[in-house]
Formats: sequence, structure tokens, C-alpha cells
Amino acid sequence: MQTSEYPVHNFYAGPGKLPTSVLARIGKELHNYRSTGMSVVEISHRAKPIVDLIERTQQKFKELLGLAAGDEVLFLQGGGSMQFIMLAMNLSEKGDSVDYVDTGYWSKKAIGAALELERDVHIAGVSETGIPKHLSIRENAKYLHLCSNNTVMGTQWFQFPETDVPLVADMSSDILSRSIQANDFGLIYAHAQKTIGTSGVTAVIIPEKAREQLLPVTPSFLSYASHIEAASNYHTPPVFSIYVVECMLDWLRDEIGGVENMEKINQEKAEKLYAFIDQSSLFDCPVVKEDRSMMNVVFNLSDEGLTDKLLNRADANGMIGIKGHRSKGGLRVSLYNPVTVEDVEALIQFLTDFENAS
Amino acid sequence: MQTSEYPVHNFYAGPGKLPTSVLARIGKELHNYRSTGMSVVEISHRAKPIVDLIERTQQKFKELLGLAAGDEVLFLQGGGSMQFIMLAMNLSEKGDSVDYVDTGYWSKKAIGAALELERDVHIAGVSETGIPKHLSIRENAKYLHLCSNNTVMGTQWFQFPETDVPLVADMSSDILSRSIQANDFGLIYAHAQKTIGTSGVTAVIIPEKAREQLLPVTPSFLSYASHIEAASNYHTPPVFSIYVVECMLDWLRDEIGGVENMEKINQEKAEKLYAFIDQSSLFDCPVVKEDRSMMNVVFNLSDEGLTDKLLNRADANGMIGIKGHRSKGGLRVSLYNPVTVEDVEALIQFLTDFENAS
Repeated sequence: MQTSEYPVHNFYAGPGKLPTSVLARIGKELHNYRSTGMSVVEISHRAKPIVDLIERTQQKFKELLGLAAGDEVLFLQGGGSMQFIMLAMNLSEKGDSVDYVDTGYWSKKAIGAALELERDVHIAGVSETGIPKHLSIRENAKYLHLCSNNTVMGTQWFQFPETDVPLVADMSSDILSRSIQANDFGLIYAHAQKTIGTSGVTAVIIPEKAREQLLPVTPSFLSYASHIEAASNYHTPPVFSIYVVECMLDWLRDEIGGVENMEKINQEKAEKLYAFIDQSSLFDCPVVKEDRSMMNVVFNLSDEGLTDKLLNRADANGMIGIKGHRSKGGLRVSLYNPVTVEDVEALIQFLTDFENAS
Repeated sequence: MQTSEYPVHNFYAGPGKLPTSVLARIGKELHNYRSTGMSVVEISHRAKPIVDLIERTQQKFKELLGLAAGDEVLFLQGGGSMQFIMLAMNLSEKGDSVDYVDTGYWSKKAIGAALELERDVHIAGVSETGIPKHLSIRENAKYLHLCSNNTVMGTQWFQFPETDVPLVADMSSDILSRSIQANDFGLIYAHAQKTIGTSGVTAVIIPEKAREQLLPVTPSFLSYASHIEAASNYHTPPVFSIYVVECMLDWLRDEIGGVENMEKINQEKAEKLYAFIDQSSLFDCPVVKEDRSMMNVVFNLSDEGLTDKLLNRADANGMIGIKGHRSKGGLRVSLYNPVTVEDVEALIQFLTDFENAS
């Protein structure tokens, strides 16, 4: 494991890097949150500072996503895994037709939950090395589910399907990393730990138009309506994780200058790294060019025997978290919002040196 | 809201006070966790520092509770509300007999979840001003559920029922505040935010003997067996909240000297405050003496009209979080592990001054 003697470049697939200024703010506010004389983690969730924190964070989230006043942003526990269950339960009943696009690892997990809940699951399209361009969507489907960015496969949707069926998207690994038309979706969910915070909280975005489609769900804890009614304070919320989201949204708005600027920076980082890989004779990216993820760059060494050597050297040089997903091997570099152009340039230099020495 | 100009005494009912030394440690480690050069909230949950963190915290939890090597401690998201569902699903099926003791607010919520899941619920005993001494437990009950400390009512179990039916306890507000025979229970769950940490994580203790009683549950995310198999890393865990639990367990072991010492301190705090209330002519505790909670002291002013005046003055004097639960009114002072004898003495002085001036 890396020690602090070396400069660290953190490319973990999540939880991952936070901006230096966000960590500095957390440290500064840790002992006295907004002049309360207490830490943010010591205050009751029913007390005004925390009620206000949740409301502000929801509001900032809506502004950055371009949502309207009537749209809802919930902050829930349980990660994407919990949403795989809740979305199926709140938008469909047992036996209902529900359509899913299978783009690998995480989308398969969402599909698995719908099957366990005895929904009539139809796979509208499949691809593990890209994004399927032609989908067969059933007219009577309660929703079409997709995963907007596939962390394991290194693929990303750049054009979302046009359909009359409500579109449900797992945006856990690219929310607020680029501009989207949030209003085109029936439901969006995203855990915070990749692009907008750390683990422990998941944002669920429910546009006003989708409210009436929500079914009554028992147990009521699993009902979106319960959490909407309670303004994300149905039970004790994960306060620290929500606080980190607020810090991240402030950083995104005030230091980066908004989502469009963030997208430009993310494009620059990804283009630099893919350009390096494509010109290299040692490294190779298996993903079709038009579907390559801006967030997770998945690539291999043409000489697989060198992978372990590279990973060991990466650790010793402060290049952290570039090992491929355990189901795939190879390399994966995650370029979430907090990763800087300088981090990417340092990595490219490291990979160049490694290639030249091989 | 209190400002830092005043010394703050934090009596929130949870999330609430953390020890000064724990907050200092969190601040110190925030930018460089265990020489990784990264913050604990920036590291992948599959990386060794976090896998080790979870394992160490489980181990320390087991040692402090006196559990055996084969017993399980899980760290899950979703709070007590999630456990109301999971315990019913993992220990019983639809239509099964399940017995609950109703000691008010939170135990009623657990009962509500079992009813929503269509279990055959029997109330084995009821009391809202004390702990029922005689229970009618059905022989065929899959479990008997109780809430060991009732934060809203200010009551606490000091002698647990002896029964052949597996005993399931919600210990969210008194876990590790006193010695218990953990082996007497079939299942214990406790969110961390009152006695052992902040919000976002819930400890679930499953003794080895109870493992075989766990039913296969779908969706598998709601199955204890799934989380046991994955060593609390089934999906991304709430890393920061688990980290705070480790800090709290270290504090409990190394600074307090273990659970027995903690219990003595908690007794001293509660005895001082109850003794003050009992000798006062302005304040009155409605709870029968033998069932009074060491964690939450619930009391009223004999002149109810003075309650708001007292609460305003409390705020201005740094006595934070002593307003009664919104369902009850009056006053509630929470004396969880981090609250010091000095905090209690300062509060008694404040209440004495208020009484003398009234």
C-alpha cells in the first residue's frame, strides 16, 4: 500500500478521490458546523441545521440537474442494490412487463433483482463491449431500465433511447459528470460515492410527472412516496454522507463552474488517456470508440504477463486503484469528477515510462 | 441555534455527542488514513485498508460484547427501519406467529413492519410508562421482539425475559452502554448513532446458533446470509460511519476501560439526574423507578407553561437537545456513552438555577 511519502494519484473506481478543497472544508468544519459548536455528525436529524442541510442539498442538486420545483430528489441509504429493489417495487407489480438493457455487470444485478421480485423481465438489448444501438422495447413495459455508465465494461450511453416507456437510469457512476436532459427520464438513481461524494447515500430523482405512476408499496419503508412525504427524513438519514454531497455540489458549482464545465474537463481527461492508449503498442482498449466511457477507461496490456509488474510499479509510484475489476482483469482507470487533468498527465507519463522500459 | 461562543453540552437523542478525543482523531486522520496518503472516504471498499477496517471493527465489536469467533457482526445500511423488515423476513414467513412486546413508539414501528409483511403478530405485553413484567409468549412464535431501551418513553429493560423462543432485540439506543449476555439473544440490531457512532450504519449481531434459523430470503439483498457471506461487503458499505464506529470502540476500550466501566459512568450520570428531578418541586419524571432508562431521561415541568421558557433559556446557555420527543412534549435528556458526568452536572446546575428563578 502506498504511503504518504509519495504523491498519490487516486484512480479508484469508487469510493474514490475527493477534491482537495472539499476535504479541507470537511476538516475545517468538523469541530464546529455552522457555528453550532458541534460537529455535523453530532446533531439530531430533526434539528434545524440538519433539516436545512438536507433541503439545501436537494435544492442544489435540482439546480445543477436543471430540475423543476415539483421534481423530487431523495437521499436514501442502501446504494444501488437497494434501488434495484425499490424501483421495481414502486413502478411495477408481480408479473408486470419490465424491460432492461443488459450492458454487463451492474445492469445484470438490476435484472437479477427484478427476476427475484417475479417481474416479467425482457432484455431489450445486450452488449458487453459497447452500447446496443437497436432495442426491442415492449409497448406494455412499465419501464425501460439502463445503466448510463458501465464501470466494469468501460462503456457509456451518449444517446439515450427515445421511447414512450418511462426510462429508468442507474447513473451511479456518471451523475453530474456531464449535461443530461433529466426530464427525459422517469426515474434516475445514483449513489454518491463516485462523482458527487462518498459512500452511504444514494440520490433518487423522481420527476413530478412520474409521481402519479408510483404504486402503493409495502413495507412502507420501501415506498418512494413515504420518503417523499418525509422529505428524506423518514428515518435517521446518513447525515455525514449528505453533508459531503453538499460540499461536492458547492465545489462543482463554485470552483468548476457548473456541469457543462465539468463535462469539458472530463472529456479532456478521457481524450488524453484514450489517445495515449490508441497510439501505444503495449496498451489496448477493447471498447468500440463511440461507446468508450469518459469515467472508466478499461484497457489491457498486449503482453498480459506484464500486468502484475505494472500494478506493482504503479503502487510504488503512487498510481492508486488502476487494477481492472476482479471479473475482468487488466487495467481500469476511473476519471470521476474530482480526478484532475494533472492526475491523468502523471498517469500517462508513468505508463509511457513503463512502456519504454519494457 | 447555539453558537460556539458558549460552551455546548450536547444531549441530543441521536445523532448526538461524540467524545472530543474521537472527533480529534477523525480530524487528524481525515487527510491521510493510516499512511495511505488518502482520506478514509476516498478509498475503494475492495482495497485492503477498507477490508481491514471492516474486519477490525467487527472483531472489536465482538470482543466488547463477549461474542464467540463463530458469531457474526454485520454493518448494514438502512437503520432500524430496515431491520424491522429484514428480521421479520429472515426469521419468519408470511402467516408465521411472531411475538412482540409493545413498549411504545419504536417497538410499535417494528410491529407495524411485521404486520405489513403479513406475519401473524401477537402482542406479548404492553406498557408505555414502564416495562411489562408478565408476558404471554406463544410456544410456536418464531421469535419474541423487544426494544431494550425506549428513547421516547424513557424506559429500559433491566431484566430480559427468559423464554425458549429466540429473543430479538432492538438495542439501537443502549448497545455497549452496559453489560449484557449477548448469547441470550437470537438476534440483536443497533444503529450506531446513539451510543457507538454517528448515523448511516447499523450493527446486526447474529450468534452462530441462530445461523441455521435464517430463512432463504429474496430479494437476496435483504437476506442476512448474503451479507454474512460477503463479510459486510456485499455492496459498497458506508465506510465513514463504520470508521467512526471503530474510533468509538477504541475509545470505549482504551479510554473508558471497557463496557463495565462505561456502565458505571452511565449509572452515575443517570442517578445524578434522576435524584435531582425527584427532589425538585418543579420537575417530575412519570416513569416508574425500576424501569427508568439510563440513556434517556424523560421528565416534565409541573407548570407546563414554563416548558418553552426553559427550552429557550437552555438554547441560550448551551444546553442542547433537551426538548421532549415531538409525540410527547416536555423534556428529554439523552445520556449516551459520550455524554460526560460534567455535562450532567452543568445541566443540573442550569435546571437548579431555572427552578430557583421561577
